[in-house]
Amino acid sequence: VPAVDLPEIEFWFDFGSTYSYPAAVNIEKLAEVHGLAVKWRAFVLGAIFQEQGWPDSPFNIYPLKGRYMWRDMERICQTQDLDFNRPTTFPRNGLLAARVTSAAEGAPWLGSFVRQIFTANFVLDLDIADIDVVRSCLEVLDLDPNPILDAAAAKENKDALRTQTDRAKQLGIFGAPTFISNDEIFWGNDRLGQAITWAKRDA
Amino acid sequence: VPAVDLPEIEFWFDFGSTYSYPAAVNIEKLAEVHGLAVKWRAFVLGAIFQEQGWPDSPFNIYPLKGRYMWRDMERICQTQDLDFNRPTTFPRNGLLAARVTSAAEGAPWLGSFVRQIFTANFVLDLDIADIDVVRSCLEVLDLDPNPILDAAAAKENKDALRTQTDRAKQLGIFGAPTFISNDEIFWGNDRLGQAITWAKRDA
Repeated sequence: VPAVDLPEIEFWFDFGSTYSYPAAVNIEKLAEVHGLAVKWRAFVLGAIFQEQGWPDSPFNIYPLKGRYMWRDMERICQTQDLDFNRPTTFPRNGLLAARVTSAAEGAPWLGSFVRQIFTANFVLDLDIADIDVVRSCLEVLDLDPNPILDAAAAKENKDALRTQTDRAKQLGIFGAPTFISNDEIFWGNDRLGQAITWAKRDA
Repeated sequence: VPAVDLPEIEFWFDFGSTYSYPAAVNIEKLAEVHGLAVKWRAFVLGAIFQEQGWPDSPFNIYPLKGRYMWRDMERICQTQDLDFNRPTTFPRNGLLAARVTSAAEGAPWLGSFVRQIFTANFVLDLDIADIDVVRSCLEVLDLDPNPILDAAAAKENKDALRTQTDRAKQLGIFGAPTFISNDEIFWGNDRLGQAITWAKRDA
């Protein structure tokens, strides 16, 4: 059976982003149900925040927004029966995990790895910037971490992630998660369903 | 038949707020279906933005957010078969209409008036700060505008609206629309359905 070119949904996310966590958990199974291919697009949200004049997450800069978000995350995760523990550090630095994601583009285990990292950050309260944490997220998937971490650390891959963040800016992305579906932007975990419907518009 | 005390959903909105428009159109019929009473809570969002350090709408201050919002509004209104024209002035000053809303608390025509003002702003591109526009929104409902506008302009009513905006701050409201349902905050037009479900939790 020849591979069919499925319509795509791009999932732009940062591993430190709270609302990216439920989206990351749900997108692959939803996409499968709807016959879509997920493109995992990790990027460095902090670089985009900097350009908006925010040296930190807006959830830290604007306490009202932050207070709301933490309660909202609890409700969302409760509704979906998803474990959630507020991390002791927020936002965590997802650069290393994003480099692994970039280096592993197209790998069949990529979705599982992404979810492992989000679980490390938002359930286990682990420092995802720590290479040993990333290593264990690979090991738990029965992968040999060394060649993967080497590929992640290669200059070309670091450059590729930088290019990807630049592309996020060019696309007009200003937050995470963001979905690109049929050339249109949908911002926020709330919009996953709408983005999926939009991807199938011309399908 | 004695009146039944329905569970309530509070709808906090500003007449200049784009996403408040579809929420205002939908909330009353949705609430009716689910056996809820709508409490219309107009407030002055600009006063809250000022406290966050924003002298203008964040959609004007952050162009990426603004560009996304205008396209998103088009999509939302298209999906709901709702007329929408980007106003030539944004955000419009909804103070006068908010004062009418405050003065008319409990009036059976209040929902219709709120929708007329949103239509004036986001469909007809009229200046809702103009007393003649507000007057015509009342007249089209077969109301005598004069006593209503007098009540809106009364000092006690102006104070009541100021108190309402202060209450919004105390509740932790930072944007519009916001729903208060069973003592919890839900922010954004997207969350209307969730807020309705939450209102019925203990019902």
